[in-house]
Amino acid sequence: MMAQNIYDDEEFFGGYSQLLRSKNGLDGSPEWPALQEMVGNVSALRVLDLGSGYGWFCRWAAAAGAQSVLGIDVSSKMIAQAEDWGRDPAIEYQLGDLDTVELKESAYDLVFSSLAFHYLTNLDGLFTKAYNSLSPTGRFVFSVEHPIYTAPVQASPGFQTDVDAPERKSWPLNSYANEGLRIRNWLKDGVRKQHRKIDTYVSSLLGAGFTLTGLIEWMPTLKHVEDHPEWKDELERPMFLLFAAEKK
Amino acid sequence: MMAQNIYDDEEFFGGYSQLLRSKNGLDGSPEWPALQEMVGNVSALRVLDLGSGYGWFCRWAAAAGAQSVLGIDVSSKMIAQAEDWGRDPAIEYQLGDLDTVELKESAYDLVFSSLAFHYLTNLDGLFTKAYNSLSPTGRFVFSVEHPIYTAPVQASPGFQTDVDAPERKSWPLNSYANEGLRIRNWLKDGVRKQHRKIDTYVSSLLGAGFTLTGLIEWMPTLKHVEDHPEWKDELERPMFLLFAAEKK
Repeated sequence: MMAQNIYDDEEFFGGYSQLLRSKNGLDGSPEWPALQEMVGNVSALRVLDLGSGYGWFCRWAAAAGAQSVLGIDVSSKMIAQAEDWGRDPAIEYQLGDLDTVELKESAYDLVFSSLAFHYLTNLDGLFTKAYNSLSPTGRFVFSVEHPIYTAPVQASPGFQTDVDAPERKSWPLNSYANEGLRIRNWLKDGVRKQHRKIDTYVSSLLGAGFTLTGLIEWMPTLKHVEDHPEWKDELERPMFLLFAAEKK
Repeated sequence: MMAQNIYDDEEFFGGYSQLLRSKNGLDGSPEWPALQEMVGNVSALRVLDLGSGYGWFCRWAAAAGAQSVLGIDVSSKMIAQAEDWGRDPAIEYQLGDLDTVELKESAYDLVFSSLAFHYLTNLDGLFTKAYNSLSPTGRFVFSVEHPIYTAPVQASPGFQTDVDAPERKSWPLNSYANEGLRIRNWLKDGVRKQHRKIDTYVSSLLGAGFTLTGLIEWMPTLKHVEDHPEWKDELERPMFLLFAAEKK
């Protein structure tokens, strides 16, 4: 089964291209410093980026000295935009659906992915392919939307004011046990995501053979919120989940 | 700093002793089958139970062939009750506060704990002591209240009916980023717990030197709910978090 390719939809693409993380790339992604620390030194590494989008990470990795960078994405529009924003002999883009893609074995030192895996239906399959695609000392670093964020069954879940304390906002969490499809209205109606519990991500990683080396439920600090008052509600519940794992 | 010893409080103890998990022990604890699978075979093992309470796990381990079982608990009332419910030459109980306890080094093959660590203020310290107390191939298995359950700052958080769908219940999650003390009214007012994110538990384990081998956000299945309709709301958000780790 193929993942929905919402990124080639005109309406979604138009909205997505206006997001801060689309326009400003890594600098517009508040979780990037934490993810970058997990990524570490990429100098001379062969890098694979699963769901490479606009190519921000591919360009960063190439600039940081990666030997080669392959970005795979399901959206031809995004690949075209990525190529438009800077060609580099070290970077190659490839059209591919992560639910069905074939990856070269023992060909990469780092497999990376940012906010793509919560669209996939076959996570176990991809994790096994990622494992096999890595060199014996290879590493796997990725982010997904946090299950607390993906769980609610509402099409547009949002914070609610508490009945007993109007100054306090809470995230109405429900259906956490019910893994699977969530249809969300975000930029466009009918975006299809997959809700998975944290333990499912971890079991899938361990089952594929990986050793977990890092887990971050990314949330802003009070200092972040001082600089970005618009992030205040993000202190209530995590939006991003970051993983680091090793093959060895 | 010592953890609050609420279990020696008359009012709390009276209420606690009436819980299903107090009266029926492991059989009254819905997460036990999952935890038991993580524990595995204890035959001939030297077992340490941190926060042994009524001694249900100690007695189970002794009956399952453990070579020796040491249960440590902060409550003299609970130890007295545990001893009253069955003496076994393989079991020893010891009064101790897990925030300050000293553990023998390389003395155990399995360190276990059920629903105790969310009371502690010095988790890093205890995890390091647990690591050092284990033999080279030793294992560490424990459960805590899930951060989704401990996060809300309300003294008595509870499910709320959704404004837009009165048939749906949601758990009003807030303050997930704000780790530390939560004062809850549960059996008695003023119970002191420590909210910690999942990534904090994982980082503390990895930081102590452990390898993570299992993580379970325990929730009932639909079959469980068929047998226990009173668990239905537990499908909305996890209450228990189970960890398995190895020293090697």
